[in-house]
Amino acid sequence: MDTEKMGSAAKAAERILGVADTNTKNNALEAMASALESDADKIISANETDLENGRKNGMKESLLDRLRLTRERIAGMADGIRQVAALSDPVGEIIEGSVRPNGMKIRRVRVPLGVVGIIFESRPNVTSDAAALCLKSGNACILRGGKEAINSNMAIADTLRQAVVSAGLPADCIQLVSDTSRESANQMMRMNQYLDVLIPRGGAGLIRAVVENSTVPVIETGVGNCHVFVDKTADIGMAADIIYNAKTSRPSVCNAIETILVHKDIAEKALPVIKARLDEKNVELRGCEITRAILGDSVIPATDEDYATEFLDYILACRVVDSLDDAIEHISRYSTGHSECIVTSDYFSAEKFTSSVDSAAVYVNCSTRFTDGGEFGLGAEIGISTQKLHARGPMGIRQLTSSKFIIQGDGQVR
Amino acid sequence: MDTEKMGSAAKAAERILGVADTNTKNNALEAMASALESDADKIISANETDLENGRKNGMKESLLDRLRLTRERIAGMADGIRQVAALSDPVGEIIEGSVRPNGMKIRRVRVPLGVVGIIFESRPNVTSDAAALCLKSGNACILRGGKEAINSNMAIADTLRQAVVSAGLPADCIQLVSDTSRESANQMMRMNQYLDVLIPRGGAGLIRAVVENSTVPVIETGVGNCHVFVDKTADIGMAADIIYNAKTSRPSVCNAIETILVHKDIAEKALPVIKARLDEKNVELRGCEITRAILGDSVIPATDEDYATEFLDYILACRVVDSLDDAIEHISRYSTGHSECIVTSDYFSAEKFTSSVDSAAVYVNCSTRFTDGGEFGLGAEIGISTQKLHARGPMGIRQLTSSKFIIQGDGQVR
Repeated sequence: MDTEKMGSAAKAAERILGVADTNTKNNALEAMASALESDADKIISANETDLENGRKNGMKESLLDRLRLTRERIAGMADGIRQVAALSDPVGEIIEGSVRPNGMKIRRVRVPLGVVGIIFESRPNVTSDAAALCLKSGNACILRGGKEAINSNMAIADTLRQAVVSAGLPADCIQLVSDTSRESANQMMRMNQYLDVLIPRGGAGLIRAVVENSTVPVIETGVGNCHVFVDKTADIGMAADIIYNAKTSRPSVCNAIETILVHKDIAEKALPVIKARLDEKNVELRGCEITRAILGDSVIPATDEDYATEFLDYILACRVVDSLDDAIEHISRYSTGHSECIVTSDYFSAEKFTSSVDSAAVYVNCSTRFTDGGEFGLGAEIGISTQKLHARGPMGIRQLTSSKFIIQGDGQVR
Repeated sequence: MDTEKMGSAAKAAERILGVADTNTKNNALEAMASALESDADKIISANETDLENGRKNGMKESLLDRLRLTRERIAGMADGIRQVAALSDPVGEIIEGSVRPNGMKIRRVRVPLGVVGIIFESRPNVTSDAAALCLKSGNACILRGGKEAINSNMAIADTLRQAVVSAGLPADCIQLVSDTSRESANQMMRMNQYLDVLIPRGGAGLIRAVVENSTVPVIETGVGNCHVFVDKTADIGMAADIIYNAKTSRPSVCNAIETILVHKDIAEKALPVIKARLDEKNVELRGCEITRAILGDSVIPATDEDYATEFLDYILACRVVDSLDDAIEHISRYSTGHSECIVTSDYFSAEKFTSSVDSAAVYVNCSTRFTDGGEFGLGAEIGISTQKLHARGPMGIRQLTSSKFIIQGDGQVR
């Protein structure tokens, strides 16, 4: 990977894209969407090469399915780009402003971050999603996908780049790294001169590697060891519905729950109801001693490691706790700071939980599965940040911006 | 340095401080200010030890002066703390909120970052400034100053910790690292489990070391290679005043300018006027060929390295440029993204400069020396960020916060 070349090309493109008006950017997005549709055959054929390689390498059917592109899925990608075009442009927004006592007019305006690097795994639709969000927010992007999807990603990027040019913007607004070796990822982590931020999207291993090795500022995304706490005043039916939804509607995603905590005063009544719902999907329960005393030996004993694990599967840990404080304490110890929920009818419990639990999204009486840019009304999302700096929770297009101060005077000195 | 012990002590203190109400925090700040005043003798005597060590080690008089604490300076520190108490509390502020179509009420509220690490050099007043800003914004802090000021810093931290306890908050809201070895700084850069952010305050060497080695998210502060561009339509007197102020009012600070760019059409008239002002303070000019042709051989030839240097001294580089575009190009190549100014009477030049120059603060017709939290009306500042992530420009108390989403429902599932 020629970081020098890609980096300076991105910077040059960014100087044009960063000050492009909204109409120009929306035209480019519309061209990108149309081009994906008209190039669908080419993209599907590249995708078939990836699928074939995957099969040869013994890739699991579930992963092959994530990798697979169909006409329908490509139409979905085009649709996603059009949704981004419909979002209001954050660039230029005046965040705050005032006139200083000496007459200087000062305003803080939203500007693009600059050049955004994204390292992602597997699903090729990330290429178009990320490119669209970066373009709308005025950022050039350098994308590096996994080797499993390299042919699909290259075909998609090629199509998008041509479309961007047809709309009068530089092709290098969108660049894909063709080298999928570990070395190219490491190189991106050191591109401080060119990258303003690096966003890893993928499994816990990838994210850890980027956080530990990158000197470029990183936004940590995605790992979600999420909890539901069933308070002693909870509506048991509501608790069971929320737990069922948060665990089983899509177990492989980061906003699915991994552990439930149940107040001891309600455990005997609530646990059988909750288990009955989870049994519908054959969820494997791993419980503490008290859970097992109530539900029986079919529940596997939970270990400390279970409480720390993001199962991403039909597995759920369960612990009976003595109090709300103990639930908060458990969460503060094991949570990755993504999403947590309390089910309660008690005003003070709800208040204490929402103020004391230090996670990106804290819920009262609804499913953690809502932690999502679309569900929160932010439009498409680039990821879900689990760090506290810059962005926290679902990151929409605004989180891809920075700001600058513009100060107008007539000769003021200090 | 026992990172485990200090880190978990900070986390424990933060759990209390993070949810403390404004009155409690303001009482603690008032106690801190009073304690500094009543412990002034103790602090001055510790400072004398540092000064003595400094003299023994051949410290320059200007550095000894930065290190020196007097009753007056301690009163100034106390005053600074009281000003922080007077700032409005950012914690709990609702940033945005809405009701989703399914009835879920969602709001984004400002919360403390958590535990803030600060590595700083030399001036002991940073200990009280940083502690006060962190406390008001609900953050526990771990401070590591330089070895030159260790006795002063320990005396100050000791006083502040006792004051915090007297106000009912944990002493460990404020911790000072007593080990000033390079190793302790390196350890802080790896405290991901405990630190939410690390802010280096000091020279370019320190900042580079932290950016390159820290796995904790960093806010890069302070290095300022700032520019004034004198456009062809500039009011020459205004340009000379601004340049004189921006260079000479305090050359050692980051918002002082290091290079001036002068449009060729005005150079012959403007340069002698500018030089006459700068001569009042014996500023050494290092100029391009054209500058020297106009001003004579007393101007030292400027090298490429001069354009890249933050002199922090009575030295100024000067280059005559062909156009506004060339000025923008020069700035984009050499600037550290801190503060830049255009002096112009032309509407379109002002617009183009402010939109195209990618720095934290972009000025029209006023001095770059205004880039400062107090001058911008943000209250005290923790530093001036030159990165784009999280905070850019002067960082006030709000930039020491993150946010979280709180979502209230009545049983919603997805």
